[in-house]
Amino acid sequence: MYVAIIGFGVVGSGVGEVIKKNAGSIKENSNVDLELKHILDIRDFQDSEFANLMTKNFDDILNDDEVKIVVETMGGVNPAFDFVSKCLAKGKHVVTSNKELVAKRGYELLSIAREHNVNFLFEASVGGGIPIIRPISRCLAGNRISEIAGILNGTTNFILNKMIVDKMDFADALKLAQEKGYAEKDPTADIEGHDACRKICILASLAFGSHVYPDGVYTEGISKITLDDVECASELGYVIKLIARTKMLDNGKINIMVSPALVSKSSILAGVNGVFNACLVRGDATGDILMYGKGAGKLATASAVVGDVIDCASNCEKRKFFGWGDEKKDFIEDYLKAETSLFIRAKATEGAAEKAKAAFGCDVKEKNGEIVFITDVKPESELRKKLEETKLETLSSIRVTDY
Amino acid sequence: MYVAIIGFGVVGSGVGEVIKKNAGSIKENSNVDLELKHILDIRDFQDSEFANLMTKNFDDILNDDEVKIVVETMGGVNPAFDFVSKCLAKGKHVVTSNKELVAKRGYELLSIAREHNVNFLFEASVGGGIPIIRPISRCLAGNRISEIAGILNGTTNFILNKMIVDKMDFADALKLAQEKGYAEKDPTADIEGHDACRKICILASLAFGSHVYPDGVYTEGISKITLDDVECASELGYVIKLIARTKMLDNGKINIMVSPALVSKSSILAGVNGVFNACLVRGDATGDILMYGKGAGKLATASAVVGDVIDCASNCEKRKFFGWGDEKKDFIEDYLKAETSLFIRAKATEGAAEKAKAAFGCDVKEKNGEIVFITDVKPESELRKKLEETKLETLSSIRVTDY
Repeated sequence: MYVAIIGFGVVGSGVGEVIKKNAGSIKENSNVDLELKHILDIRDFQDSEFANLMTKNFDDILNDDEVKIVVETMGGVNPAFDFVSKCLAKGKHVVTSNKELVAKRGYELLSIAREHNVNFLFEASVGGGIPIIRPISRCLAGNRISEIAGILNGTTNFILNKMIVDKMDFADALKLAQEKGYAEKDPTADIEGHDACRKICILASLAFGSHVYPDGVYTEGISKITLDDVECASELGYVIKLIARTKMLDNGKINIMVSPALVSKSSILAGVNGVFNACLVRGDATGDILMYGKGAGKLATASAVVGDVIDCASNCEKRKFFGWGDEKKDFIEDYLKAETSLFIRAKATEGAAEKAKAAFGCDVKEKNGEIVFITDVKPESELRKKLEETKLETLSSIRVTDY
Repeated sequence: MYVAIIGFGVVGSGVGEVIKKNAGSIKENSNVDLELKHILDIRDFQDSEFANLMTKNFDDILNDDEVKIVVETMGGVNPAFDFVSKCLAKGKHVVTSNKELVAKRGYELLSIAREHNVNFLFEASVGGGIPIIRPISRCLAGNRISEIAGILNGTTNFILNKMIVDKMDFADALKLAQEKGYAEKDPTADIEGHDACRKICILASLAFGSHVYPDGVYTEGISKITLDDVECASELGYVIKLIARTKMLDNGKINIMVSPALVSKSSILAGVNGVFNACLVRGDATGDILMYGKGAGKLATASAVVGDVIDCASNCEKRKFFGWGDEKKDFIEDYLKAETSLFIRAKATEGAAEKAKAAFGCDVKEKNGEIVFITDVKPESELRKKLEETKLETLSSIRVTDY
């Protein structure tokens, strides 16, 4: 079966490599023949082993009826959306690793795929080579998912881990991440949580059946986390992680949020170190399930893409029943209504400890001119209001999870 | 589509519940209609909501051409093998949670399924509700699996965890596990590692393509692990887990073994506590991937079974390409040839520390009349021989993993 690749960057060239190298074992393990026919990229790759397949003309792919499966690994929404939607409308299966595309235009593309009876698959868009999308989609068979929580961005997890383990400060840890190639020159999308937000939107859409767009999701990054936060949290038995999470509420709405959060050291999520990712799924029948692994990397991501390609090839005449519906109005609950507890650090001004104790009724520790405490679980708005009323000089307030 | 259940115990009745309760959401999420038609059990269930479906005659299922999918949840090899093989030969898909059946007769059943163009699926046989079999089978698409290591038995993990966290001794922890219903009255299959052995055999067969039978696998349980072992390991930065593992070697053979082993506290496997299970898969493209969750439980296991049933129903006219080949001769390497390091505790008789240091060239700690050390990585036979030559009064020797 002929395959074309759109976008020959890190992941796209990895897909080329994996298909070429593993054609034999793919045939043996999955009983499908895969062959690359075209690769679209605006750049020149004259020295590549795939030079003879390169094209700069999208129509070479679109109008080639022999090409049944198209891999989109160019990233970004435009022109990826245009290319993907045209391929689907021409009856070609499309596999992508492009989380921005899926998070922002997934429902439209899934609808076009349904209309033309082809598959639009994107396992690699969340968690690189870790199987996440498919297990979640499978979990839905005979199981109601109530909650998903993930460490979905390796760059921020690497930075936080360096702060926790090596007591490096944020700026130095970011610099190291850049030197190691884990963070981009402009790291905004990672450290401000936008990347994690796209991923949790994809998972929420899949788990809860309606497209959840990133625009509506409260997103907070890790750039304000200090070494003091990390150390105080550690003394209380927690590590700080960037957690992307969503939860189905009794009122039929969902909580969805990306923010730094305290995770108990006894939680399996606390053991997710370095650039690793993990996704915890809470189901009514299965209980907590976690998938863990490297969330990025050329070959890991490429192998997830190729897994989807094989799935398309094995089910070429039949569309998988997979995807979600249109956005629901007022589906996302105001994040301040979500129940949480807060970790608070404040200056130990006169009477601060007493004020905190009186207002929140919890243990308050004093150390190095600061007070530190963790509140009970309440709606966040209530906690914030109370905190304001205490007039404490708050240094940081970070949500605490119960995973 | 009509479904029959053979064996109405914990898992079987869970399958009945899940199908009945979730028929609507299954239709919605997966586009298949499931309906129970017969339930076979030698016991009476007159008060069950399924009383009208009960039968004691296997032929009611076998000869009902409307029944396209049969769930086998009776456990044990006989008569399960007879029932399953006859159903497959009659062109019915079969789904099972029966690890003993799959570990001991999987290849034969997969062959009969292939011959009659039906599916024989068993996601629930390893890890209960945790998706393991399917992700591994998927991982094989475009990825070479080199190694699998798992905490595959919740009972032993619960016991070891109690020893580690609450300093309970083995006998008390076992008693507690029995009281909580985690361990059987006769706990042999769990604590001696036989249950974990069946599961790693299934995973090895799947990953490496040839049936690996439990008979040939070196299996050691946890009944000899003492509180002293647990505490000494902890001081060196390790926890003790019952690890089932298999590895593809350069010579084309595999290592496969079940035994207690030291796992570094910084490993994600060290965070797998209580009755939880986890399975780590090492692939050339994906790196380390881990699936984690509750490895047992009525609804968790039932939901995995129902997931397979849905898979059969969605692909009713087409067999999935899935399974493995016949046993390979001399496929399992002598376990003593496997490279490992050993954790050794011995009596601190005169000159013991010096002897150990001279023989193994590693740090030796002395405490409470004992010496403790961890050797370098060597073939196990070499380490055992050297240990014998030192004439130390060895108290315990436990393998150390590098996961």
